Amino acid sequence: MRKPIGVIDSGVGGLTVARELMRQLPKERFIYLGDTQRCPYGPRPEEEVREFTWQMVNYLLDKDIKMLVIACNTATAYTLEELQNQLSIPVIGVIEPGARAAIKVSQNKRIGVIGTEGTISSKAYPNALRSIDASIRINDLACPPFVPMVEDGILAGPMAEGVVARTLQPLKEMNHIDTLILGCTHYPLIRQLVQKEMGDHIQVISSGEETAREASLILAYQKALNTSNEEPVHEFYTTGDIEKFRVVANSWFEDPVRILELVELEGTRSSA
Amino acid sequence: MRKPIGVIDSGVGGLTVARELMRQLPKERFIYLGDTQRCPYGPRPEEEVREFTWQMVNYLLDKDIKMLVIACNTATAYTLEELQNQLSIPVIGVIEPGARAAIKVSQNKRIGVIGTEGTISSKAYPNALRSIDASIRINDLACPPFVPMVEDGILAGPMAEGVVARTLQPLKEMNHIDTLILGCTHYPLIRQLVQKEMGDHIQVISSGEETAREASLILAYQKALNTSNEEPVHEFYTTGDIEKFRVVANSWFEDPVRILELVELEGTRSSA
Repeated sequence: MRKPIGVIDSGVGGLTVARELMRQLPKERFIYLGDTQRCPYGPRPEEEVREFTWQMVNYLLDKDIKMLVIACNTATAYTLEELQNQLSIPVIGVIEPGARAAIKVSQNKRIGVIGTEGTISSKAYPNALRSIDASIRINDLACPPFVPMVEDGILAGPMAEGVVARTLQPLKEMNHIDTLILGCTHYPLIRQLVQKEMGDHIQVISSGEETAREASLILAYQKALNTSNEEPVHEFYTTGDIEKFRVVANSWFEDPVRILELVELEGTRSSA
Repeated sequence: MRKPIGVIDSGVGGLTVARELMRQLPKERFIYLGDTQRCPYGPRPEEEVREFTWQMVNYLLDKDIKMLVIACNTATAYTLEELQNQLSIPVIGVIEPGARAAIKVSQNKRIGVIGTEGTISSKAYPNALRSIDASIRINDLACPPFVPMVEDGILAGPMAEGVVARTLQPLKEMNHIDTLILGCTHYPLIRQLVQKEMGDHIQVISSGEETAREASLILAYQKALNTSNEEPVHEFYTTGDIEKFRVVANSWFEDPVRILELVELEGTRSSA
């Protein structure tokens, strides 16, 4: 099936998921929409995140997507079930793939989760983990400084190391976990710092890789994989600054982004 | 949904898959049927494998299973599509999960596959891999001595090392792969030997772990996970020697097998 797959995110963090999707599903065509102007979603009230998410979803449904990937943990926490119930296409979030992968690798059933305030307070990860295995013990921690730091491009160096060390301190003090879920799509960009701070004995799970794997399975299961061998041309849309988006996107993908356009959703300004 | 999940295999190899299923889906109840008396399936003609597999499937359908896992690569290669088309419950094989996991981890897109003669000559792995990514290069190799060796309990020592070294020689000579799929559920039992022979730079994929992960996703996607917290009691059935089966099963599972019975299928002898 040659229809595209839609990917939505609050900003550029979901590009880590998109990159993995493109790598693991090289025959598929993707349409990415990042609500960069209103990023981050993490501190926003649930109702607002739901409204913004539906605006993005409706924009992509008009493009006749065959599957929707919510490449944003906060949006997944608040809207996944609703979207799965109301859309006729498969909807994949980033939370359950991360949870299943953590259960696969954890030996001692003690799993850590870090994410935005919204994701952590929603308890979406603990719910997903315990719905599969009630005996799992979870330490979760909101890390509010991480998204602004990553959005500012501070990905290494003493300052980034200091922020990561201070923020993760409470999690280290309860250091019995053997697996840590990066419950925010921005965090893979500081994965090395997190790994170094937590120690080599901790297995760090990146939701992006896992989500791509599950999207691949659901497409195959639905017999909706694209079987044509034509090179796909992906499309990118942002509600924010196009050139800033291009710089980030081009630093993450092997090939430069070809189609990139500004999109106005209800409430976003095209002059942004 | 409290209905059980059915798992079939040509013998005891599929217990490696069952163990992972039980670990990753601890709330689910499993019914395992191993056609130990007629194992191995690898060298048998396709028509015979199809007939034996259908006999096992029909036995489990009578037990009202909600999902079927074909924990045998040879049976998956010959019957997966047919079973998926004809049964109304989800059917998971071991080949596609292994293929998707290999695509996820391979960096150079050169993937090795080892399995029985039946699995390798069916080209099921190359087909699964290339249907996702046409640019992947595959080196596959049939390893006929491995299943009888494992069934005889020879899992370590100089003899096992020698057999593994000699058998894998052709694959080592074309040593550009970075990922190797264990395309037979017996092989995880000699995984260390294979890893040592191939070298630490090769990522070895075990289909059992990957299949459990995908079964977990499909159950969640179908909203068919068991939400009760009652301790499940699994059932095991074999067409062959019960006590031999019990020894192997008890060496693989933490808890001793509680329900284990002899089953007679058309053509198997209950006196076996």
